[in-house]
Amino acid sequence: MADNKKLVEAITSMEEDFAQWYTDVVKKAELIEYSSVKGCMIILPAGYALWENIQRQLDDRFKATGVENVAMPLFIPESLLNKEKDHVEGFAPEVAWVTHGGMEKLQERLCIRPTSETLFCDLYKNIVHSYRDLPKNYNQWCSVVRWEKTTRPFLRSREFLWQEGHTIHETYDDAEERTIMMLNVYADFCKEVLAIPTIKGRKTDKEKFAGAEATYTIEAMMHDGKALQSGTSHNFGDGVAKAYGIQFTGRDNKLNTPYQTSWGMSTRIIGALIMVHGDNSGLVLPPMIAPTQIVIVPIQQKKDGVLEAANRLKDSLKDFRVKVDDSDRSPGYKFSEQEMRGFPLRIEIGPRDIENGECVFVRRDNAEKCTVKLDEAPAKAKELLETIQKEMYERAEAHLKSSIFDARTYDEFKDIAENKPGFIRAVWCGDEECENIIKADTTVTSRCMPFDDTELISDKCVCCGKPAKHLVYWGKAY
Amino acid sequence: MADNKKLVEAITSMEEDFAQWYTDVVKKAELIEYSSVKGCMIILPAGYALWENIQRQLDDRFKATGVENVAMPLFIPESLLNKEKDHVEGFAPEVAWVTHGGMEKLQERLCIRPTSETLFCDLYKNIVHSYRDLPKNYNQWCSVVRWEKTTRPFLRSREFLWQEGHTIHETYDDAEERTIMMLNVYADFCKEVLAIPTIKGRKTDKEKFAGAEATYTIEAMMHDGKALQSGTSHNFGDGVAKAYGIQFTGRDNKLNTPYQTSWGMSTRIIGALIMVHGDNSGLVLPPMIAPTQIVIVPIQQKKDGVLEAANRLKDSLKDFRVKVDDSDRSPGYKFSEQEMRGFPLRIEIGPRDIENGECVFVRRDNAEKCTVKLDEAPAKAKELLETIQKEMYERAEAHLKSSIFDARTYDEFKDIAENKPGFIRAVWCGDEECENIIKADTTVTSRCMPFDDTELISDKCVCCGKPAKHLVYWGKAY
Repeated sequence: MADNKKLVEAITSMEEDFAQWYTDVVKKAELIEYSSVKGCMIILPAGYALWENIQRQLDDRFKATGVENVAMPLFIPESLLNKEKDHVEGFAPEVAWVTHGGMEKLQERLCIRPTSETLFCDLYKNIVHSYRDLPKNYNQWCSVVRWEKTTRPFLRSREFLWQEGHTIHETYDDAEERTIMMLNVYADFCKEVLAIPTIKGRKTDKEKFAGAEATYTIEAMMHDGKALQSGTSHNFGDGVAKAYGIQFTGRDNKLNTPYQTSWGMSTRIIGALIMVHGDNSGLVLPPMIAPTQIVIVPIQQKKDGVLEAANRLKDSLKDFRVKVDDSDRSPGYKFSEQEMRGFPLRIEIGPRDIENGECVFVRRDNAEKCTVKLDEAPAKAKELLETIQKEMYERAEAHLKSSIFDARTYDEFKDIAENKPGFIRAVWCGDEECENIIKADTTVTSRCMPFDDTELISDKCVCCGKPAKHLVYWGKAY
Repeated sequence: MADNKKLVEAITSMEEDFAQWYTDVVKKAELIEYSSVKGCMIILPAGYALWENIQRQLDDRFKATGVENVAMPLFIPESLLNKEKDHVEGFAPEVAWVTHGGMEKLQERLCIRPTSETLFCDLYKNIVHSYRDLPKNYNQWCSVVRWEKTTRPFLRSREFLWQEGHTIHETYDDAEERTIMMLNVYADFCKEVLAIPTIKGRKTDKEKFAGAEATYTIEAMMHDGKALQSGTSHNFGDGVAKAYGIQFTGRDNKLNTPYQTSWGMSTRIIGALIMVHGDNSGLVLPPMIAPTQIVIVPIQQKKDGVLEAANRLKDSLKDFRVKVDDSDRSPGYKFSEQEMRGFPLRIEIGPRDIENGECVFVRRDNAEKCTVKLDEAPAKAKELLETIQKEMYERAEAHLKSSIFDARTYDEFKDIAENKPGFIRAVWCGDEECENIIKADTTVTSRCMPFDDTELISDKCVCCGKPAKHLVYWGKAY
């Protein structure tokens, strides 16, 4: 048990210091290692396996909607970046510049893509000629670089992994349909795979993406009451296409300008996974995304037949991602380590269990134990993993719902901002100045104007008292 | 048929101009689009789908040997790159340098990884402390940048996609075992999945990787008689670990230096796939790697029941990657386009076929046709795809074998180099000077010292006449 304690004591409790708890979990669960490049992180096998599972399942959902993957260059020539004014103003301050290639100074600087709208425009200009060429629903999985000043593992780093979809359409409606479709793909993926409930909505103009006409977002609620923007989908209208000179011959036999969208989800979502489900023993992973769903711990593993029984049990569970921990550590150490890593289900099997034809199942999410007949283990594992997935979502949803507070006056708003971690639900006049005042007073920003919850709970803007136009979810955000 | 002809005439024949044939196929099969960043290419859906299939199947083979995936930063600080002398000399002349991040000049330049040995050393230095931490078998899928002067799609570009495995071991033997194991993974993958036979062997010191003790390679033979290095695996001994100060406490309780390997395969292999199997109608894809294995072409598709029958046939072939081409092009145009794209099997189905309960199968690799009962289509498809895969390998192997020529004198050597495209099999004294002379005289380089074919066919070096030490495969190379 000494081993055990030491490992558990290594994480700060979240009540004591949430930020430190997060950093400890990321490090002790061996998701991340810091690199000697400031602001860049190394994603270790336990972290990358999460990303691989996210990538595979999200990619399948993309492809089911007709998305095709491509690979674009890492570099954007400065002149290409500069073609669209809002976009360049949004990104130029935070890009990394390549000035030399080999031994020579480049004639034109190249920035490392902070996002690839410009490159996709350049491609579409070359390959889209007729309405028959539309739509193109392209996506790429890659890394991008944004020269952030402060960084945190998964949440903000100078280089991060993501996917970026970029589509081009014949009509505005087609583009809008795709924008919403992809937002729904993200929301469904978060709900069904990551067990993360989100609020879906539209960003205010102040918070929208540089160059977009409309940005839609899904916002998740962390344990500490902060919001995390978990996926965004942008409708560019025809503005970017105009800036880049993309035209096609329409059904009317005239030159038309196409409409574009982009949408992305990044390794940030792993931060959400940690902060929505984790506890003071470490990670808690939903079964659908866990690289290891079941870990079998042989008890008194040196005794005759124990390891063999553990391996037979493993073979009977071949429908799951399962492994046997036969290292020479004590069971207590193994339990702690596996809890830290968040494996959804642990199965203990020792000499007495074998005698009784049994084993013991222990759930990571709520520590519940039950004894299971060995020949019923596969059915029980299936049932429990489904239950865990479902109950993790329900708990997260209950937390989200209990973290929404209504404010009808600015005093109420400021009181909640100071004392109640979570979303603040309040109406707004539509004026950016009010967002600025609120942010200056409380550090709270508008997260979104929700789709499913639009009733104005007051008729006056919570900040200025002018007539209210939108219900807004406000919050402190990562 | 006018349509049809136009499309076919769009590719230069390989007998007329092999290089132009290659470029035409890459472009007309829509694998690649040039980008506005000089030397960088855009991989379009048809090309990227190939890479995804390669990646998934190769990754499964890696994981079966215990490899784990990670993600390392894109950047290498100049000081870190400079730690290992041979390595930096090999790469410094061809790296891209980042000098500015955001609005500021960086204190230290960062190069964009040309390969990541240095970053993995930096990581292993931090996480390897004891023999219990060994081995680490890490790999990453990413892009790297090398500032090449001349570029060609897939074969040589300033940025390319690859995987790079980097492992660290307790003993030299462990490292050597891993080096050879991964070379075999590559060779088996080429043979079993890509239907590409290769020659396995060791590189001469002149041709080995910068910083490695030994480099092993698989070399494939293209249609034009040129060799293409298709995958390499390097044993670094303990030299790099020493340069980077990596040490671990061994079983002897003393500080030891570990041994390292690295190994990589890149999108170059798609170039090999094109040049080993392609023909004057375009790509020819082995079924195991083809994104679309079967394409169904409805004939007189506007007639009642034809499209329905085509879709029913598709549903019966759900074990395969299959699609129906119901575009409004003529059948002749579709046939040409599908041949260009290399789909292994085409199935034609029209009103008369439907009446007879039949369809027509056409093989891409040899144009053979056969009539098949509709209810036997799934079994016949399985059989034919297996046959195509097998026969494509056999043809490639026959071509490889017929492209190996023995030279026992330097006159013979020069005559073959000038007149017979392929490998030259000749013995060598082991002196780099002979390699330099041969290259200057003939543009031929040593490809490898083969593993499976070691008998010295002469006792005198083909160049200088001194005692022969190694049998070497020589060739002109991509």
